[in-house]
Amino acid sequence: MPESSASPVSALMRPRSIAVIGASTQPHKAGGMPVRLLLEHGYTGRVVPVHPSAAEIQGLPAIASLREASQAIDMAIVCVPQPAVRQAISDCVAQGVKAAVVFTGGFAEAGDPGLAEQDQIVQLAADGGMALLGPNCLGAINLRERMFATFSPATLRGMPPVGGIGLVSQSGAFGAYAYVLARRHRLGLSHWVTTGNEAGIQVADVIEWLAKDPDTRVILAYLEGCKDGPRLVQALRAALAAGKPVVITKVGRTDAGARAAMSHTAAIAGEDAVFDAVFEECGAIRANTIEDFFRYGQLFATAPVPHNDAVAIITGSGGVGTLMADRADDLGLQLPPFTEAESLRVTEQASLATTGNPIDVTGQVVGNPRVLEVACEIAAENGRYGSIALFTAAGALSPAFWPTLEQCARQITSRPGITATIAGIMDESQRQTLTDLGCLVYEEPTHAIEAIAQLRKYALGRQRTQPLADPPSPANRPLPVGTLDEASALQVLAEHGIGVVPHGVAMTADEAVAAAQRLGGAVAVKVLSPDIVHKSDVGGVRLNVSGDEAVRKAFDTLLAEVSVKAPAARIRGVLVARMVRPVLECVVASRRDPIFGPVLTFGLGGTEVEWLGRVAMATAPVTPQRVMQLLQRLDLLRRLDGWRGGPKVPPQALVDAICAVGRIACTNRGLVHLEINPLLVNADGVFAADALMQIQ
Amino acid sequence: MPESSASPVSALMRPRSIAVIGASTQPHKAGGMPVRLLLEHGYTGRVVPVHPSAAEIQGLPAIASLREASQAIDMAIVCVPQPAVRQAISDCVAQGVKAAVVFTGGFAEAGDPGLAEQDQIVQLAADGGMALLGPNCLGAINLRERMFATFSPATLRGMPPVGGIGLVSQSGAFGAYAYVLARRHRLGLSHWVTTGNEAGIQVADVIEWLAKDPDTRVILAYLEGCKDGPRLVQALRAALAAGKPVVITKVGRTDAGARAAMSHTAAIAGEDAVFDAVFEECGAIRANTIEDFFRYGQLFATAPVPHNDAVAIITGSGGVGTLMADRADDLGLQLPPFTEAESLRVTEQASLATTGNPIDVTGQVVGNPRVLEVACEIAAENGRYGSIALFTAAGALSPAFWPTLEQCARQITSRPGITATIAGIMDESQRQTLTDLGCLVYEEPTHAIEAIAQLRKYALGRQRTQPLADPPSPANRPLPVGTLDEASALQVLAEHGIGVVPHGVAMTADEAVAAAQRLGGAVAVKVLSPDIVHKSDVGGVRLNVSGDEAVRKAFDTLLAEVSVKAPAARIRGVLVARMVRPVLECVVASRRDPIFGPVLTFGLGGTEVEWLGRVAMATAPVTPQRVMQLLQRLDLLRRLDGWRGGPKVPPQALVDAICAVGRIACTNRGLVHLEINPLLVNADGVFAADALMQIQ
Repeated sequence: MPESSASPVSALMRPRSIAVIGASTQPHKAGGMPVRLLLEHGYTGRVVPVHPSAAEIQGLPAIASLREASQAIDMAIVCVPQPAVRQAISDCVAQGVKAAVVFTGGFAEAGDPGLAEQDQIVQLAADGGMALLGPNCLGAINLRERMFATFSPATLRGMPPVGGIGLVSQSGAFGAYAYVLARRHRLGLSHWVTTGNEAGIQVADVIEWLAKDPDTRVILAYLEGCKDGPRLVQALRAALAAGKPVVITKVGRTDAGARAAMSHTAAIAGEDAVFDAVFEECGAIRANTIEDFFRYGQLFATAPVPHNDAVAIITGSGGVGTLMADRADDLGLQLPPFTEAESLRVTEQASLATTGNPIDVTGQVVGNPRVLEVACEIAAENGRYGSIALFTAAGALSPAFWPTLEQCARQITSRPGITATIAGIMDESQRQTLTDLGCLVYEEPTHAIEAIAQLRKYALGRQRTQPLADPPSPANRPLPVGTLDEASALQVLAEHGIGVVPHGVAMTADEAVAAAQRLGGAVAVKVLSPDIVHKSDVGGVRLNVSGDEAVRKAFDTLLAEVSVKAPAARIRGVLVARMVRPVLECVVASRRDPIFGPVLTFGLGGTEVEWLGRVAMATAPVTPQRVMQLLQRLDLLRRLDGWRGGPKVPPQALVDAICAVGRIACTNRGLVHLEINPLLVNADGVFAADALMQIQ
Repeated sequence: MPESSASPVSALMRPRSIAVIGASTQPHKAGGMPVRLLLEHGYTGRVVPVHPSAAEIQGLPAIASLREASQAIDMAIVCVPQPAVRQAISDCVAQGVKAAVVFTGGFAEAGDPGLAEQDQIVQLAADGGMALLGPNCLGAINLRERMFATFSPATLRGMPPVGGIGLVSQSGAFGAYAYVLARRHRLGLSHWVTTGNEAGIQVADVIEWLAKDPDTRVILAYLEGCKDGPRLVQALRAALAAGKPVVITKVGRTDAGARAAMSHTAAIAGEDAVFDAVFEECGAIRANTIEDFFRYGQLFATAPVPHNDAVAIITGSGGVGTLMADRADDLGLQLPPFTEAESLRVTEQASLATTGNPIDVTGQVVGNPRVLEVACEIAAENGRYGSIALFTAAGALSPAFWPTLEQCARQITSRPGITATIAGIMDESQRQTLTDLGCLVYEEPTHAIEAIAQLRKYALGRQRTQPLADPPSPANRPLPVGTLDEASALQVLAEHGIGVVPHGVAMTADEAVAAAQRLGGAVAVKVLSPDIVHKSDVGGVRLNVSGDEAVRKAFDTLLAEVSVKAPAARIRGVLVARMVRPVLECVVASRRDPIFGPVLTFGLGGTEVEWLGRVAMATAPVTPQRVMQLLQRLDLLRRLDGWRGGPKVPPQALVDAICAVGRIACTNRGLVHLEINPLLVNADGVFAADALMQIQ
């Protein structure tokens, strides 16, 4: 594995020798557990217990200090009390140890003095070029190499099967629970890592390493917060490029959850919608329950991706078939029916069968199981179905029927590129037989449909994921600092190639009249003030004003009304703008997320934008393809495509404007907030009709 | 049970003697199964096999024809071939049998001749005052009385526990599968009924009977379609009034599902959103997966309803606690923290514990299980929490920890009105122990939170469910038949007390000018035609027109444009209407659902109403309370409550108008479709600014 050996995670996961600093003679204590586990599981490297006085620990010769080690030590497990950790780390560095796992708590999670101590340890490790896992973590396991660097009692009742799922959890307790669940549900794990305080190795580092690990096919990651957004994005994209699905549970989605996460590990949960955008952009699959976390993990570890969206639902219960068809429709899967000739082959076996898809072989299957084989044969062989979802009710429990079911499973799974799912009640051994054949087996029939939809979603997400947009070079001319009024903001937009409404600024009624004459036609008259965000809320907007007299009156009444409703606002005159008739009013905004940097929000605009909430989110810079995908999802493209007798407006100008806002946000690190609302879209292009900009 | 004995279902469920017409000597055949099951399960009534030649069936003396029966027969099971069914029914009636279960298929589900035959049977039974279950059904079971009137092989591996859940399914295959699942997951059933073709007894009849049955606490119903909407509503309301939750799975939700349902049992699935509205109005709980169907059933059968929305989440894993807090927030539950004094009691036991709720006792619970007891004690005794959600990870499997967990469960469940949920991994026997104590036990922690939310939702739904609005008496004066143009439609609305915009009709430009002068201020000019639904799509609307010249021009250009864009439309002049400035534009519509009758749709209006889809649905007549509840859910009340500096508009006029539309729909059976869009709402009241009405 030359490509991954340089990672600090490699030093951690593949040591040929391990020192346990603070090893205990008592196998159930934190310092005793790793020695016990390494011995019991048959780790083949050297294990060197370090203990100030004991000559022997659990049958192994011990040394009093790491400095007495006679041979090279690859990795050290540190389980001494908090005040002794710094010395242990220092000893590790002195001995050329490549990685240290620190179980000990009482660091950053315990407040400022702990954080200061943690910083010292980090510095020591960094200076010595040593990788650091923890502190305050439950450690790591490489299941294939029987490398147990953990003290979790969850490991005491045996191992999960060794398999292709790499699991990384920020939380130790969650990691321990996940280990038990994996064992219970026979989920094959390759590695298990908990990152705790993440002073050194982060979840993202482990994801990236697992993406390169040949023994790992799927990555399960549990996150509470994220310190380094770009690092996480890089890791997720590495996994995507390697074709290894990442299933993520990120808690702290809601206000209550975020508060809980903060009190748990002092992690800042971050804005959840931004995480959603990032995960989707990187092709990661989010799971919001532990059940889904493992279900998706199992799914991606075992099943081939169906070659298309067409599913053949084959069932003996019309009712359950309908339930499955409902779910398939919810999730955008297709249910093409059997052809007439194919139907005939089925009804020859069971006269009451319906083949419209769901293919319902009816209760007649009890008398003639052959009808199920025929239906599976047709669906597997005609090449039209990417997946087959079989519902067998309690049929597997009937000794007369089971051989047929097994035969059907063989038939389907022998065809490459077809996903086979079977839902029904069965014994554990039957379930294992079908799983070993390559089927996804569920008790709940809708889970079979969801599995197919998830596989398709991942495949399409991977196809569609564009390379990151090129990071634009920094701006030549920095933006002026402060909150810009509308006129200045429109000017900045125009300079960046974004269309704005023709307009002028007036300080007097006469100037307003002159501006209106110059623009021609009806105008909007709006107060100009850096202090007023919602102009219409304080009477600061007059629309559709035509004629000199009307403009003059608008100027006067507007300023009078604003002076009453917003007496403290600084007034910089009025903006007189040509009325542009839009086909669609959009909003395009950018703000700086503390974790992931500039984030765009765009969608349906107007004064009701927050209330309607018809907006999408993307990190900047953004590609035109991604913008189009999101406009499609918002159903906005339909509004531009001759909607209700209106004109057909090519979306290109809108897409360009959104991408341009992304570039402005990336090239001006001081841009805190930019909002264009409305951005009017019509056949002539886009026109920013109002804009706000705040620069630090 | 005097109140339920009159129901046809009583005759079916509590027979003292059963004849099996078409009984077979072979116990695995359809005619043999009921005899076998009644004997094996120890049914205490008389069983009389009817067979043309055999003197004895499975050890019981047989008679050759029902007419030879020497004693009264309460109920008959009919399993003769299709052509012989009519004679069997006729014999039953002649012998005074009170109920017949017909297994035999080949009736309505097989096409028109079968339907004709079915109609004959129905007539015979009705004339004889005999209840009829089926045909084409799997029969029924009364578990408590060991009354097995079924031939389903699903019954062969033993019974589910006898308990408080009544289960009724239109589909036999689904019913059979549900029986097996109930046995597997130890769900206690009272009755099990499949209704098949529903020629006689419908799902609704069974629901209503179970609502009165003292042995049933919860009703699980599976539906594919519904012939008689009002009957279903009546049954669901009876269950609600009896305090018995009804969990419904209604398949055919989507287009694909509806097609599947139709090919399965020829049931018309109906419009799904209407079913959703009906279920909610009747306090029924909808489940879209089999897993949820049973999970909700179990939940309502075993748990007390929490007395408030406050949950104490108690966990040893901060991460899983956060996951649960997220779900609680999603579902609107509250997480009030421990007081300072309470916190102190916890941290005395475990120094690292956090008590902000989730109450995280941390890994320290392993060393000192007492901390968990203290936390549970506090939450159970301070009276502030309606429910407690405990997450125990794999703790139950530790013999040292299990007694603590059991003690905590006892502590919580000894307090009335507190719901106890425990999530974690445990053995089946441990699970049973905790369930027997009255805890809801899950493996998935978010399921514990969902359970609490469902219980609360049912309780609140029951509190909130208003009696049905009084059915209005039929209209004195019927509406004119046909499609009404805007002017006529507005007149009908005005006659029913709904505010309309001041307006006049003009056939010439002069008349338009005169009308505008009379109305005063700016006007809207709109084409009047019964053939044009979307006036603005054909250029048939001019808004904000002021001044004689402008009105004249609007009249001319409008008619010219419409004559080009809609040349075939009949033009009945133009409508000149005063411009009314709305605070909110709503839509209120009514149409006639084939199953449930008049259905209202209302919400955010305007030209984008379909695109925005911000509407709610209710059956008519509707109460003001229900309208307010739905406006709240649509977030429209906020728009009327001084939104963004606007005026505060009492919602009463809007609510009244919606209720009035409901009354119009109920009192005019010929009203196919009525749509007011927009209904302008402001401080002066409501103003219908456009309306469509179609009457048959």
